[in-house]
Amino acid sequence: MDDHVTPRRVVIIGGGFAGLFAVRALRKAPVAVTLVDRCAHHLFQPLLYQCASGILSSGQIAQPLRAVLRRHENLQCLLATATDVDVAGRVVHAVRPDGSSLALPYDDLIVGIGMKQSYFGHDEFAEHAPGMKTLDDALDLRRRIYRAFEMAESADDPQERAAWLTFALVGAGPTGVELAGQIREIAGLTLDREFSGIDPSQARVLLFEGSDAVLAAFGPKLARRAARTLGKLGVEIRLGSIVTEVDDSGLTVRRHDGGTERFEARTVLWTAGVEAPPFATTLARAAGAEQDRAGRIMVEPDLTVAGHPEIRVAGDLMSLNKLPGLAEVAMQSGAYAGRRIRHDLEGRTRTARPFRYLDLGSAAYICRGRAVVKMGRFEASGLPGWLIWLCIHIVFLTGFRSRLGALASWAVVFASGSRRERAFTSPRPQDDAADAASLSGTPADPKAERHDPSRPA
Amino acid sequence: MDDHVTPRRVVIIGGGFAGLFAVRALRKAPVAVTLVDRCAHHLFQPLLYQCASGILSSGQIAQPLRAVLRRHENLQCLLATATDVDVAGRVVHAVRPDGSSLALPYDDLIVGIGMKQSYFGHDEFAEHAPGMKTLDDALDLRRRIYRAFEMAESADDPQERAAWLTFALVGAGPTGVELAGQIREIAGLTLDREFSGIDPSQARVLLFEGSDAVLAAFGPKLARRAARTLGKLGVEIRLGSIVTEVDDSGLTVRRHDGGTERFEARTVLWTAGVEAPPFATTLARAAGAEQDRAGRIMVEPDLTVAGHPEIRVAGDLMSLNKLPGLAEVAMQSGAYAGRRIRHDLEGRTRTARPFRYLDLGSAAYICRGRAVVKMGRFEASGLPGWLIWLCIHIVFLTGFRSRLGALASWAVVFASGSRRERAFTSPRPQDDAADAASLSGTPADPKAERHDPSRPA
Repeated sequence: MDDHVTPRRVVIIGGGFAGLFAVRALRKAPVAVTLVDRCAHHLFQPLLYQCASGILSSGQIAQPLRAVLRRHENLQCLLATATDVDVAGRVVHAVRPDGSSLALPYDDLIVGIGMKQSYFGHDEFAEHAPGMKTLDDALDLRRRIYRAFEMAESADDPQERAAWLTFALVGAGPTGVELAGQIREIAGLTLDREFSGIDPSQARVLLFEGSDAVLAAFGPKLARRAARTLGKLGVEIRLGSIVTEVDDSGLTVRRHDGGTERFEARTVLWTAGVEAPPFATTLARAAGAEQDRAGRIMVEPDLTVAGHPEIRVAGDLMSLNKLPGLAEVAMQSGAYAGRRIRHDLEGRTRTARPFRYLDLGSAAYICRGRAVVKMGRFEASGLPGWLIWLCIHIVFLTGFRSRLGALASWAVVFASGSRRERAFTSPRPQDDAADAASLSGTPADPKAERHDPSRPA
Repeated sequence: MDDHVTPRRVVIIGGGFAGLFAVRALRKAPVAVTLVDRCAHHLFQPLLYQCASGILSSGQIAQPLRAVLRRHENLQCLLATATDVDVAGRVVHAVRPDGSSLALPYDDLIVGIGMKQSYFGHDEFAEHAPGMKTLDDALDLRRRIYRAFEMAESADDPQERAAWLTFALVGAGPTGVELAGQIREIAGLTLDREFSGIDPSQARVLLFEGSDAVLAAFGPKLARRAARTLGKLGVEIRLGSIVTEVDDSGLTVRRHDGGTERFEARTVLWTAGVEAPPFATTLARAAGAEQDRAGRIMVEPDLTVAGHPEIRVAGDLMSLNKLPGLAEVAMQSGAYAGRRIRHDLEGRTRTARPFRYLDLGSAAYICRGRAVVKMGRFEASGLPGWLIWLCIHIVFLTGFRSRLGALASWAVVFASGSRRERAFTSPRPQDDAADAASLSGTPADPKAERHDPSRPA
C-alpha cells in the first residue's frame, strides 16, 4: 500500500484485456486500485476455441488475475459481480459468490466488462445453440463436440447417427470459422482410428452466414481464400442464410431466395453476434449515458461518459468511432483509461490527447498451417498467414507462464493432430437425462434395441 | 474386427485401472470387447489431488479411453451408464447420456466400476463436505479451495474471514494427507504476495481422523514420520475425532474422551471412506452374490461370482482376502480377469491358477520433496521417499502422452511453488446465490458495509 493517507480510489470492473491494461497503466500511480470481476481469472479469449477443441487446457488460457498482477502493490483484486452503480454517491455495488453484498466507493471508475452472446431477439435459441464467451462456455462446447461422436458411436439408428455427426455453426466471423476448422480437424485427424461403429471423418460441418461472405471484415480477397481453405477442409459454407428456428434436433434456415431448409444437427453452436450485458444498461441509466444498438455505451473521445469525467468505459463495451471488438482495441483503450488517471494526478492534463486506436491488424486461424492475417494494406493467408498468426500469439502470450506449454501443445497438434486436453466432465444436470435415470433407478427399457458389438463398422 | 463369424462377446463395465488392464489382456484374443463407462476418459485417480490443487490439468490425468486404446482392433468403447444386468439372458442394460437405453449382450462380463465416497450413513454431509472420486469432484474441490481465499479477501468481518481461511479434512488416509499438504503449500507458497487484505499463509488446515494415526496403513513408523512432516507444514492433526455434524459454516467433532468441539470452517472436504455404488447391489441381487459390509462383491479365488463363471469382478469393487483399494490391485486383477478369458479360449484351463496379488508397495505424497513409501519391509520417507514416489509415478504414467507435461508441472511447482492450472469456472447453480441474485437483478443491499480499498492489510 502507498504511504498517502487517502489515496485516490480507482475501481475497475472487469479483468479482461481492458481492465488488465488499465491496472498496468496505474501500477506506479499513487492510487488505490480495486479490480472486481465475477471470475478470478483473466481469460485469453482469442484462444478460447482452442480450449473448446481440446488443444489447450483451461490453465493455459485462464490465469488467476491476482497471479498475473501479483507485483502491483497498489491493487486489490475482488471476486464479485458488479450489480449497480450509485453515480451520485460514487459507489459500485457488487455481490460476492455467496450472495452477500459489497459496496466499493470510487473516485474514478473504469468499466471494461465486455459483451455477451446475442441471439438477435431469439434468446430461446440459447438452450440449443450455446455461444462461446467464457471459460465455462468453452468447456461446455468441448463436452458437446466430443460427446456428439460418442453418441454417434452408440446410435443404432442411421438417421440418429447422421444427426450426431452433423455440426452446425451459426455465423462465419472469426469464431465461427475457427470452430468450423477445429471440428473438421478433430473429425478427420484427431479421432482417426478411434471408433469402430462410425467413421468420424464423415462428420458434416455446416457454416451458416447471413451475409454473402465468410470473414467479411478481412476484405473480399482474404474472404475468398478463407472460403476456399474451409471448402478443402470439408466445411460446407451456406451464405445468405438466416437461422429462423433451433431445437434439440437441428435448425431451420431461410435462404436469400426466400426458401427455407431444415437440417438435422444435434450440435448447433452460435457464433453470430454480441450484445451488451445487463449491467451496461444499469450503468447507462445511472449515468445518463447513451447506448448504441447493441447496447454499447457511447463515450467521449477521452473514453469518459458524457457529463461524468470520473467514469470511463474501455474495451468491447465502449462505443466510439465504430471500433471493432478486438483484443487489441481493449488493450489500448484500457491502457489509455488508466494512463489518463495517472496523468491527471501528475498534472499532465493540458497535453491530454483523445484516444487513438493504432490498428495492428487482425488474424483468424483456420486449421493447422492455415490462417488469414490483415494488417492495414498488408494481407497474408495460407502458411505465411499461419506463421504470422503463430508469431503474434507467441508475442501476446509473453508474460504468461503458459507460453511454453501452448507452444508444446501447438507442436503436438501440428505434427500429429493429437489433442491433449479432450477430457470432459459430466454435463450440468439439466443437460443430461441419463444421470437422473441412473440415480432414480429407472429400470432399463425392455424395448431397447440390442446393441451388437460384432456388427460391422 | 476379427474374422470369426460369432466372436465371444466380452462386456467390460468401467474404464478405470481394472477395465483398462482387462481390455489390454484381451487385445490378441479372438473376442469382441465392449467397454462401457459413464465417462469417456480413463482417470488416473492417484493424482486426482494434484488436479484439485492446480498442479495438473484435467487432460493430464484424464485421457480419452478410445485414444488410450486406439490400437485395439477388437474393442468398441461406449459412453453409457450401466443400470442393470439380466444374468439369465446375459445382457447388460445401460443408459446413454441422452437417456435412451442400450442393451449389451455378453458371453463374459467383467465389472470394474470402483467405489464411491461413503459418509457412513450420514449422506446429508455430502452437500457441505464433498469427496474426491471423479474428475468433476476434483474440479469442484479446486473451485472450493481457491474461492475460499477469494472470499476471505473480500470479507470485512474478521470471524467470517477466519472461517474462510479454515479448511477441515475428514479422514487421514492418503487422500486426506495429500490434500492437507497441498492446501498448506498453496497457502504458504503458491499464493504468496497475491493478496492485500489477508495473509494466506495464516490459513488453518485441520485434519480429523477417527483412529489414532495418520496413514495407519503404512505402519507406526511411517505414520509418525508423516505426522511430523505434516506438523512442520502447519497441518493441525486431530486424532481420535469423529465428525458428528457438518453444515455450511463448519463441523462438530466428538473426541475420544467424549467431549465435543465445534470448528468454524467454510471448506470441509471428506476423504474418509468408500462404499459400493448402487449398481453393485443391483448386480449382487441379480447374480445372487454376497457383499461385504462396504458393499463390495465377494468373489471366488478366480474373481468370478459364485455360481457364475461368466461374471468376474475386479478392482476396488471386488472383495477378496481383504485386498486394499489400490490402483495396483485394480491393474493386476483386471489383467487377470482378461487373461482368464483369453486362456479359456486357448484351452489353457487346466493350468489356471487363482488370482495372487503381488504387493508392489504403496506411496503417499505429503508435500514437495516429502513422501512416504512402503514396499513390503522396505520403508522410506522424506526426500528419499519423494524420489521413489517420483520414479513410480513417471513409470506408471508411461504410455500416456501427458508424462512430459506432468514432469514439467512438477518441476515448476517444486522450484517455485507456482501452480499453472488454477482456473476454476463458475459453480453449479445450486452452489451459488450470487449468480441468481445478479441475473434476477436483485438490488444491492443498502446495508452492505463499505469496503475500503485503502484499509491496511
